[in-house]
Amino acid sequence: MKRILIGILMCLLMAGLAYAKEDASMKDMFSVIHARKSVRNFTGAAVNKADLEKIIKAGMAAPTAANMQPWSFIVINERKILDDLAAELPNAKMLTKAGAAIIVCTEPDKANGKSQDLAIIDASLAGENILLAIEALGYGGVWTAAYPYVDRMKHVKAVLNIPDKVIPLNVIVIGVPAGEDKPKDKYREGKIHWERW
Amino acid sequence: MKRILIGILMCLLMAGLAYAKEDASMKDMFSVIHARKSVRNFTGAAVNKADLEKIIKAGMAAPTAANMQPWSFIVINERKILDDLAAELPNAKMLTKAGAAIIVCTEPDKANGKSQDLAIIDASLAGENILLAIEALGYGGVWTAAYPYVDRMKHVKAVLNIPDKVIPLNVIVIGVPAGEDKPKDKYREGKIHWERW
Repeated sequence: MKRILIGILMCLLMAGLAYAKEDASMKDMFSVIHARKSVRNFTGAAVNKADLEKIIKAGMAAPTAANMQPWSFIVINERKILDDLAAELPNAKMLTKAGAAIIVCTEPDKANGKSQDLAIIDASLAGENILLAIEALGYGGVWTAAYPYVDRMKHVKAVLNIPDKVIPLNVIVIGVPAGEDKPKDKYREGKIHWERW
Repeated sequence: MKRILIGILMCLLMAGLAYAKEDASMKDMFSVIHARKSVRNFTGAAVNKADLEKIIKAGMAAPTAANMQPWSFIVINERKILDDLAAELPNAKMLTKAGAAIIVCTEPDKANGKSQDLAIIDASLAGENILLAIEALGYGGVWTAAYPYVDRMKHVKAVLNIPDKVIPLNVIVIGVPAGEDKPKDKYREGKIHWERW
């Protein structure tokens, strides 16, 4: 009996170690979707480059009309560039405390039917995957809008040397969360219509 | 020694049962993001109502500019309505074999700054969460565009009695996959710019 217990304990220990190892990157999708929140308060710590690559790969797995992939991604780690962006983006001041940023860009000429609408939608879907990946990896992120604000897009394009024909959709600010931001419950039953409006 | 082995085997059996139980709804977020594909071939089987509710809840957990939530959702199970939609949507003929559909709607007047651009982006993010939830639950789905096509939006509004001021963004077709559709690898290293364009 004692030996059976020792066996069970050994096994639980191994399972616990395996679970702890998996936990860093394996998170249930529904939990991530409901845990995701706009994080605007960061510790100032850096974001790992391998994690940023994983986040961008998630972005490129989004659907895109007629598989046109009109998107591209600028990934920023450098302190000075993050601060330069913050300087004229009143909605993205938290960049000064963040560890990284991703700008989801899109090019209407490359979208299905050269549609700017579809270019924006495709890039938006990539952006949502990016936000979910940030949450899943234990970082915090927030989508700060560049598009459709002319002044913000102009500043982002100037700082990052973005070609005229390319639209910077957003500045997704990324960092280690300071723990102050919580998810909102946005479920409203009245927003659901069954069968017809 | 034999008893230790019995203990280990009992423990592995319990862990296996626990894992099998979790597997149906607990799927790692990155796996879901990379397994998601546009599914256009369905068995014709129905979609569970509780699953549809879970899918819509995931949609409403998306970020929305200034928390305005300009979105709403029409969820369709009825065979006749699915067929009526298909009748004049050449890009959504697979509705006739699908089990359900979700139309993500959006209302510019309710969006931040009454911006149609932000209304479309908010609804798009909800739509991506919906596609991921469909995949996570083992169904297949495909985003067929209504917006920005005037003729398609007109047909969807007529069939579903959608008010003038509301935009039907898409018809997300949902069903049990027939197994013919596979995810695309859309990763392109050249789409990533480090620090600057």
